[in-house]
Amino acid sequence: MNLAGPLQAVVEEFSKFPGVGAKSARRLALFLLRQPHEQIDSLVESLIGLKTKIKFCKICFNIGESDICDICSSDRRDKSIICVVEDINDVIGIERSHEYNGTYHVLGGVLSPLNGVGPESLKVKELLQRLNGEVKEVILALNPDTEGEATSLYLNRLIKPLDVSVSRIARGLPIGGNIEFADDATIGRAVTGRGLF
Amino acid sequence: MNLAGPLQAVVEEFSKFPGVGAKSARRLALFLLRQPHEQIDSLVESLIGLKTKIKFCKICFNIGESDICDICSSDRRDKSIICVVEDINDVIGIERSHEYNGTYHVLGGVLSPLNGVGPESLKVKELLQRLNGEVKEVILALNPDTEGEATSLYLNRLIKPLDVSVSRIARGLPIGGNIEFADDATIGRAVTGRGLF
Repeated sequence: MNLAGPLQAVVEEFSKFPGVGAKSARRLALFLLRQPHEQIDSLVESLIGLKTKIKFCKICFNIGESDICDICSSDRRDKSIICVVEDINDVIGIERSHEYNGTYHVLGGVLSPLNGVGPESLKVKELLQRLNGEVKEVILALNPDTEGEATSLYLNRLIKPLDVSVSRIARGLPIGGNIEFADDATIGRAVTGRGLF
Repeated sequence: MNLAGPLQAVVEEFSKFPGVGAKSARRLALFLLRQPHEQIDSLVESLIGLKTKIKFCKICFNIGESDICDICSSDRRDKSIICVVEDINDVIGIERSHEYNGTYHVLGGVLSPLNGVGPESLKVKELLQRLNGEVKEVILALNPDTEGEATSLYLNRLIKPLDVSVSRIARGLPIGGNIEFADDATIGRAVTGRGLF
Protein backbone atom coordinates (compact mmCIF):
# COMPACT_ATOMS: atom_id res chain seq x y z
CA MET A 1 0.00 0.00 0.00
CA ASN A 2 1.23 3.42 -0.82
CA LEU A 3 0.99 5.81 2.06
CA ALA A 4 -1.29 8.74 1.52
CA GLY A 5 0.73 11.39 -0.37
CA PRO A 6 0.99 14.00 2.38
CA LEU A 7 2.07 11.38 4.91
CA GLN A 8 4.63 9.98 2.50
CA ALA A 9 6.02 13.49 2.03
CA VAL A 10 6.65 13.82 5.77
CA VAL A 11 8.23 10.36 5.90
CA GLU A 12 10.60 11.35 3.11
CA GLU A 13 11.57 14.56 4.90
CA PHE A 14 12.27 12.72 8.16
CA SER A 15 14.30 10.10 6.29
CA LYS A 16 16.80 12.81 5.39
CA PHE A 17 17.83 13.14 9.04
CA PRO A 18 21.02 11.36 10.07
CA GLY A 19 20.33 8.04 11.78
CA VAL A 20 16.66 8.04 10.82
CA GLY A 21 15.75 5.15 8.51
CA ALA A 22 12.56 4.61 6.55
CA LYS A 23 10.91 2.75 9.41
CA SER A 24 11.73 5.31 12.10
CA ALA A 25 10.65 8.09 9.75
CA ARG A 26 7.26 6.40 9.33
CA ARG A 27 6.96 5.95 13.08
CA LEU A 28 7.68 9.64 13.66
CA ALA A 29 5.23 10.73 10.96
CA LEU A 30 2.45 8.50 12.32
CA PHE A 31 3.15 9.80 15.79
CA LEU A 32 2.70 13.37 14.58
CA LEU A 33 -0.51 12.39 12.84
CA ARG A 34 -1.96 11.30 16.16
CA GLN A 35 -1.01 14.52 17.94
CA PRO A 36 -3.29 17.52 18.19
CA HIS A 37 -2.84 20.07 15.41
CA GLU A 38 -1.33 22.52 17.90
CA GLN A 39 1.72 20.31 18.25
CA ILE A 40 2.34 20.33 14.52
CA ASP A 41 1.86 24.09 14.59
CA SER A 42 4.46 24.59 17.30
CA LEU A 43 6.91 22.29 15.49
CA VAL A 44 6.43 24.25 12.27
CA GLU A 45 6.83 27.53 14.11
CA SER A 46 10.07 26.40 15.76
CA LEU A 47 11.46 25.29 12.40
CA ILE A 48 10.67 28.64 10.84
CA GLY A 49 12.37 30.28 13.82
CA LEU A 50 15.44 28.12 13.22
CA LYS A 51 15.59 29.34 9.65
CA THR A 52 14.92 33.01 10.25
CA LYS A 53 16.34 33.79 13.69
CA ILE A 54 19.54 31.80 14.04
CA LYS A 55 22.69 33.52 12.86
CA PHE A 56 26.29 32.38 12.68
CA CYS A 57 28.70 34.55 14.64
CA LYS A 58 30.87 36.61 12.29
CA ILE A 59 33.87 36.12 14.57
CA CYS A 60 33.81 32.51 15.76
CA PHE A 61 31.01 30.89 13.66
CA ASN A 62 29.18 29.71 16.73
CA ILE A 63 25.42 30.22 16.57
CA GLY A 64 23.41 32.98 18.18
CA GLU A 65 20.61 35.40 17.55
CA SER A 66 22.75 38.29 16.42
CA ASP A 67 25.79 38.86 14.20
CA ILE A 68 28.17 38.41 17.13
CA CYS A 69 27.43 35.47 19.44
CA ASP A 70 26.86 35.74 23.20
CA ILE A 71 30.34 34.40 23.98
CA CYS A 72 32.26 36.72 21.64
CA SER A 73 30.27 39.73 22.83
CA SER A 74 30.62 38.95 26.54
CA ASP A 75 32.94 41.10 28.67
CA ARG A 76 33.54 38.24 31.03
CA ARG A 77 35.18 35.91 28.50
CA ASP A 78 38.94 35.89 28.09
CA LYS A 79 39.59 37.08 24.51
CA SER A 80 43.25 36.04 24.69
CA ILE A 81 42.40 32.34 24.41
CA ILE A 82 40.69 30.69 21.45
CA CYS A 83 39.48 27.11 21.67
CA VAL A 84 39.25 25.58 18.20
CA VAL A 85 36.46 23.00 17.79
CA GLU A 86 35.05 21.04 14.91
CA ASP A 87 31.39 21.77 15.43
CA ILE A 88 28.79 23.73 17.42
CA ASN A 89 28.04 20.56 19.37
CA ASP A 90 31.57 20.73 20.79
CA VAL A 91 31.03 24.31 21.98
CA ILE A 92 27.95 23.13 23.82
CA GLY A 93 29.85 20.24 25.39
CA ILE A 94 32.78 22.36 26.56
CA GLU A 95 30.49 25.09 27.90
CA ARG A 96 28.63 22.45 29.87
CA SER A 97 31.85 21.54 31.69
CA HIS A 98 32.07 25.12 33.09
CA GLU A 99 35.87 24.80 32.96
CA TYR A 100 36.61 27.18 30.12
CA ASN A 101 36.30 30.94 30.06
CA GLY A 102 37.91 31.88 26.74
CA THR A 103 36.38 32.19 23.29
CA TYR A 104 35.83 29.62 20.55
CA HIS A 105 36.42 29.12 16.87
CA VAL A 106 34.16 26.68 15.08
CA LEU A 107 36.05 25.18 12.14
CA GLY A 108 32.97 23.60 10.60
CA GLY A 109 34.63 20.22 10.11
CA VAL A 110 38.04 18.59 10.03
CA LEU A 111 40.43 17.92 7.17
CA SER A 112 39.35 14.86 5.27
CA PRO A 113 41.02 14.61 1.86
CA LEU A 114 39.10 11.44 0.99
CA ASN A 115 35.83 13.34 1.38
CA GLY A 116 37.17 16.36 -0.43
CA VAL A 117 37.42 18.52 2.70
CA GLY A 118 40.52 20.68 2.45
CA PRO A 119 41.56 23.74 4.49
CA GLU A 120 39.58 26.03 2.16
CA SER A 121 36.31 24.30 3.17
CA LEU A 122 37.00 25.04 6.84
CA LYS A 123 37.20 28.37 8.70
CA VAL A 124 41.00 28.19 8.82
CA LYS A 125 41.69 31.51 7.12
CA GLU A 126 39.25 33.19 9.51
CA LEU A 127 41.06 31.63 12.48
CA LEU A 128 44.43 32.96 11.33
CA GLN A 129 42.91 36.42 10.85
CA ARG A 130 41.93 36.42 14.52
CA LEU A 131 45.54 35.89 15.64
CA ASN A 132 46.36 39.59 15.59
CA GLY A 133 48.42 40.01 18.75
CA GLU A 134 45.68 39.99 21.35
CA VAL A 135 45.47 36.20 21.29
CA LYS A 136 48.04 34.44 23.46
CA GLU A 137 46.92 30.82 23.24
CA VAL A 138 45.04 28.57 20.85
CA ILE A 139 43.65 25.37 22.34
CA LEU A 140 43.00 22.65 19.77
CA ALA A 141 39.96 20.68 20.95
CA LEU A 142 39.41 18.37 18.00
CA ASN A 143 38.35 14.75 18.35
CA PRO A 144 41.23 12.35 19.10
CA ASP A 145 40.72 10.36 15.90
CA THR A 146 42.79 10.23 12.71
CA GLU A 147 41.17 13.20 11.00
CA GLY A 148 41.09 15.29 14.16
CA GLU A 149 44.77 14.58 14.84
CA ALA A 150 45.75 15.41 11.28
CA THR A 151 43.84 18.69 11.47
CA SER A 152 45.51 19.51 14.79
CA LEU A 153 48.95 18.89 13.30
CA TYR A 154 48.09 21.07 10.31
CA LEU A 155 46.82 23.96 12.45
CA ASN A 156 49.78 23.71 14.83
CA ARG A 157 52.15 24.10 11.88
CA LEU A 158 50.29 27.21 10.71
CA ILE A 159 49.89 28.87 14.11
CA LYS A 160 53.21 28.17 15.84
CA PRO A 161 55.20 30.62 13.64
CA LEU A 162 52.77 33.43 14.58
CA ASP A 163 54.16 33.52 18.12
CA VAL A 164 50.99 32.12 19.62
CA SER A 165 51.09 29.29 22.12
CA VAL A 166 49.31 26.18 20.84
CA SER A 167 47.98 23.51 23.20
CA ARG A 168 45.59 20.67 22.87
CA ILE A 169 43.09 19.06 25.20
CA ALA A 170 44.36 16.12 27.23
CA ARG A 171 43.87 12.60 25.99
CA GLY A 172 43.74 9.85 28.63
CA LEU A 173 41.39 7.68 30.58
CA PRO A 174 37.88 9.12 30.83
CA ILE A 175 36.65 9.94 34.34
CA GLY A 176 34.89 6.86 35.66
CA GLY A 177 36.84 4.76 33.16
CA ASN A 178 38.65 1.57 33.85
CA ILE A 179 42.26 0.76 32.98
CA GLU A 180 41.43 -2.91 32.53
CA PHE A 181 38.94 -2.20 29.77
CA ALA A 182 40.64 0.78 28.13
CA ASP A 183 42.15 0.26 24.69
CA ASP A 184 45.91 0.19 24.22
CA ALA A 185 46.14 3.55 22.49
CA THR A 186 44.28 5.30 25.30
CA ILE A 187 46.42 3.68 28.01
CA GLY A 188 49.53 4.60 26.04
CA ARG A 189 48.43 8.24 25.82
CA ALA A 190 47.51 8.30 29.49
CA VAL A 191 50.99 7.09 30.44
CA THR A 192 53.03 9.32 28.11
CA GLY A 193 50.83 12.30 28.91
CA ARG A 194 50.98 11.81 32.68
CA GLY A 195 51.09 14.92 34.90
CA LEU A 196 52.68 15.62 38.27
CA PHE A 197 50.49 14.84 41.27
CA MET B 1 25.61 27.17 27.88
CA ASN B 2 22.02 27.76 26.98
CA LEU B 3 21.36 27.07 23.36
CA ALA B 4 20.21 30.03 21.34
CA GLY B 5 16.45 30.32 21.91
CA PRO B 6 15.24 29.38 18.41
CA LEU B 7 17.51 26.31 18.39
CA GLN B 8 16.35 25.29 21.85
CA ALA B 9 12.75 25.56 20.66
CA VAL B 10 13.42 23.06 17.86
CA VAL B 11 15.25 20.74 20.26
CA GLU B 12 12.25 20.79 22.58
CA GLU B 13 9.87 20.00 19.74
CA PHE B 14 11.99 17.09 18.56
CA SER B 15 12.27 15.79 22.13
CA LYS B 16 8.51 15.19 22.10
CA PHE B 17 8.91 12.45 19.50
CA PRO B 18 8.88 8.88 20.80
CA GLY B 19 12.37 7.43 21.15
CA VAL B 20 14.07 10.80 20.66
CA GLY B 21 16.00 11.93 23.74
CA ALA B 22 17.52 15.31 24.47
CA LYS B 23 20.81 14.38 22.81
CA SER B 24 19.28 13.02 19.61
CA ALA B 25 16.97 16.02 19.45
CA ARG B 26 19.97 18.34 19.59
CA ARG B 27 21.75 16.32 16.94
CA LEU B 28 18.71 16.55 14.64
CA ALA B 29 18.31 20.29 15.24
CA LEU B 30 21.99 20.99 14.56
CA PHE B 31 21.77 18.88 11.43
CA LEU B 32 18.86 20.99 10.18
CA LEU B 33 20.80 24.14 10.98
CA ARG B 34 23.55 23.05 8.61
CA GLN B 35 21.16 22.27 5.76
CA PRO B 36 20.18 24.80 3.10
CA HIS B 37 17.05 26.78 3.90
CA GLU B 38 15.18 24.97 1.13
CA GLN B 39 15.32 21.74 3.13
CA ILE B 40 13.71 23.37 6.14
CA ASP B 41 11.11 24.84 3.79
CA SER B 42 10.20 21.48 2.34
CA LEU B 43 10.03 19.92 5.82
CA VAL B 44 7.72 22.71 6.98
CA GLU B 45 5.59 22.33 3.87
CA SER B 46 5.24 18.58 4.36
CA LEU B 47 4.21 19.10 7.99
CA ILE B 48 1.55 21.58 7.00
CA GLY B 49 0.34 19.09 4.39
CA LEU B 50 0.11 16.43 7.10
CA LYS B 51 -2.07 18.72 9.15
CA THR B 52 -4.32 19.99 6.40
CA LYS B 53 -4.57 17.20 3.86
CA ILE B 54 -4.69 13.95 5.82
CA LYS B 55 -8.11 12.76 6.86
CA PHE B 56 -9.24 9.79 8.90
CA CYS B 57 -11.64 7.48 7.07
CA LYS B 58 -15.16 7.82 8.46
CA ILE B 59 -15.70 4.07 8.07
CA CYS B 60 -12.50 2.35 9.17
CA PHE B 61 -10.37 5.19 10.67
CA ASN B 62 -7.50 4.45 8.34
CA ILE B 63 -5.89 7.55 6.85
CA GLY B 64 -6.39 8.99 3.40
CA GLU B 65 -6.92 12.19 1.54
CA SER B 66 -10.73 12.09 1.54
CA ASP B 67 -13.51 11.24 3.98
CA ILE B 68 -13.53 7.61 2.87
CA CYS B 69 -10.13 5.95 2.49
CA ASP B 70 -8.84 4.28 -0.67
CA ILE B 71 -9.45 0.80 0.70
CA CYS B 72 -13.04 1.39 1.85
CA SER B 73 -13.92 3.12 -1.41
CA SER B 74 -12.33 0.48 -3.65
CA ASP B 75 -14.61 -1.85 -5.65
CA ARG B 76 -11.95 -4.54 -5.61
CA ARG B 77 -11.85 -5.00 -1.85
CA ASP B 78 -14.03 -7.63 -0.19
CA LYS B 79 -16.42 -5.73 2.08
CA SER B 80 -17.57 -8.92 3.82
CA ILE B 81 -14.32 -9.23 5.79
CA ILE B 82 -13.04 -6.71 8.32
CA CYS B 83 -9.53 -6.99 9.71
CA VAL B 84 -9.32 -5.28 13.10
CA VAL B 85 -5.94 -3.70 13.85
CA GLU B 86 -4.55 -1.55 16.61
CA ASP B 87 -2.94 1.12 14.52
CA ILE B 88 -2.41 2.54 11.03
CA ASN B 89 1.06 1.04 11.05
CA ASP B 90 -0.55 -2.41 11.13
CA VAL B 91 -2.64 -1.60 8.05
CA ILE B 92 0.55 -0.67 6.25
CA GLY B 93 2.24 -3.91 7.34
CA ILE B 94 -0.64 -6.17 6.30
CA GLU B 95 -1.08 -4.35 2.98
CA ARG B 96 2.61 -4.87 2.30
CA SER B 97 2.12 -8.64 2.57
CA HIS B 98 -0.33 -8.54 -0.39
CA GLU B 99 -2.22 -11.46 1.20
CA TYR B 100 -5.36 -9.68 2.28
CA ASN B 101 -8.14 -8.27 0.15
CA GLY B 102 -10.79 -7.29 2.69
CA THR B 103 -11.28 -4.05 4.58
CA TYR B 104 -9.85 -2.83 7.88
CA HIS B 105 -10.96 -1.31 11.13
CA VAL B 106 -8.38 0.71 13.04
CA LEU B 107 -9.17 0.53 16.76
CA GLY B 108 -6.75 3.28 17.69
CA GLY B 109 -5.20 1.28 20.53
CA VAL B 110 -5.85 -1.75 22.70
CA LEU B 111 -7.54 -2.13 26.06
CA SER B 112 -5.16 -1.12 28.82
CA PRO B 113 -6.96 -0.51 32.12
CA LEU B 114 -3.73 0.51 33.85
CA ASN B 115 -3.30 3.34 31.34
CA GLY B 116 -6.95 4.27 31.49
CA VAL B 117 -7.74 2.92 28.03
CA GLY B 118 -11.21 1.38 28.11
CA PRO B 119 -13.49 0.33 25.23
CA GLU B 120 -14.93 3.86 25.02
CA SER B 121 -11.47 5.24 24.07
CA LEU B 122 -11.27 2.82 21.14
CA LYS B 123 -13.35 2.60 17.97
CA VAL B 124 -15.26 -0.43 19.32
CA LYS B 125 -18.75 1.02 18.99
CA GLU B 126 -17.97 2.03 15.41
CA LEU B 127 -16.81 -1.53 14.68
CA LEU B 128 -20.04 -3.04 16.00
CA GLN B 129 -22.06 -0.59 13.90
CA ARG B 130 -20.36 -1.93 10.79
CA LEU B 131 -21.56 -5.49 11.52
CA ASN B 132 -24.91 -4.97 9.78
CA GLY B 133 -25.35 -8.23 7.92
CA GLU B 134 -23.01 -7.65 4.99
CA VAL B 135 -19.98 -8.60 7.06
CA LYS B 136 -19.33 -12.33 7.32
CA GLU B 137 -15.98 -12.43 9.09
CA VAL B 138 -13.97 -10.31 11.48
CA ILE B 139 -10.26 -11.06 11.66
CA LEU B 140 -8.62 -9.91 14.87
CA ALA B 141 -5.06 -8.86 13.99
CA LEU B 142 -3.89 -7.44 17.31
CA ASN B 143 -0.40 -7.95 18.68
CA PRO B 144 0.13 -11.27 20.45
CA ASP B 145 0.93 -9.64 23.80
CA THR B 146 -1.11 -9.41 27.00
CA GLU B 147 -3.07 -6.31 26.07
CA GLY B 148 -3.63 -7.44 22.50
CA GLU B 149 -4.89 -10.84 23.67
CA ALA B 150 -7.20 -9.28 26.25
CA THR B 151 -8.62 -6.94 23.61
CA SER B 152 -9.12 -9.88 21.23
CA LEU B 153 -11.01 -11.83 23.92
CA TYR B 154 -13.15 -8.80 24.65
CA LEU B 155 -14.01 -8.19 20.99
CA ASN B 156 -14.69 -11.88 20.40
CA ARG B 157 -17.22 -11.85 23.21
CA LEU B 158 -18.97 -8.84 21.72
CA ILE B 159 -18.98 -9.99 18.11
CA LYS B 160 -19.72 -13.74 18.37
CA PRO B 161 -23.40 -13.22 19.36
CA LEU B 162 -23.94 -11.09 16.24
CA ASP B 163 -23.66 -14.16 14.01
CA VAL B 164 -20.35 -13.03 12.52
CA SER B 165 -17.42 -15.43 12.26
CA VAL B 166 -14.46 -14.25 14.32
CA SER B 167 -10.91 -15.41 13.55
CA ARG B 168 -7.51 -14.24 14.55
CA ILE B 169 -4.17 -14.17 12.81
CA ALA B 170 -1.95 -17.21 13.35
CA ARG B 171 0.66 -17.18 16.04
CA GLY B 172 3.70 -19.42 15.54
CA LEU B 173 7.27 -19.42 14.44
CA PRO B 174 8.16 -16.47 12.23
CA ILE B 175 9.29 -17.31 8.69
CA GLY B 176 13.06 -17.68 8.75
CA GLY B 177 12.84 -18.34 12.49
CA ASN B 178 14.52 -21.12 14.36
CA ILE B 179 12.90 -23.60 16.75
CA GLU B 180 16.06 -23.83 18.82
CA PHE B 181 16.01 -20.13 19.63
CA ALA B 182 12.27 -19.54 19.83
CA ASP B 183 10.77 -18.87 23.26
CA ASP B 184 8.59 -21.50 24.97
CA ALA B 185 5.33 -19.62 24.50
CA THR B 186 5.88 -19.29 20.76
CA ILE B 187 6.79 -22.96 20.36
CA GLY B 188 3.75 -23.92 22.43
CA ARG B 189 1.46 -21.84 20.19
CA ALA B 190 3.09 -23.25 17.08
CA VAL B 191 2.40 -26.81 18.23
CA THR B 192 -1.16 -26.33 19.48
CA GLY B 193 -2.01 -24.20 16.46
CA ARG B 194 -0.53 -26.65 13.91
CA GLY B 195 -2.31 -27.05 10.57
CA LEU B 196 -2.70 -30.02 8.22
CA PHE B 197 0.04 -30.29 5.61
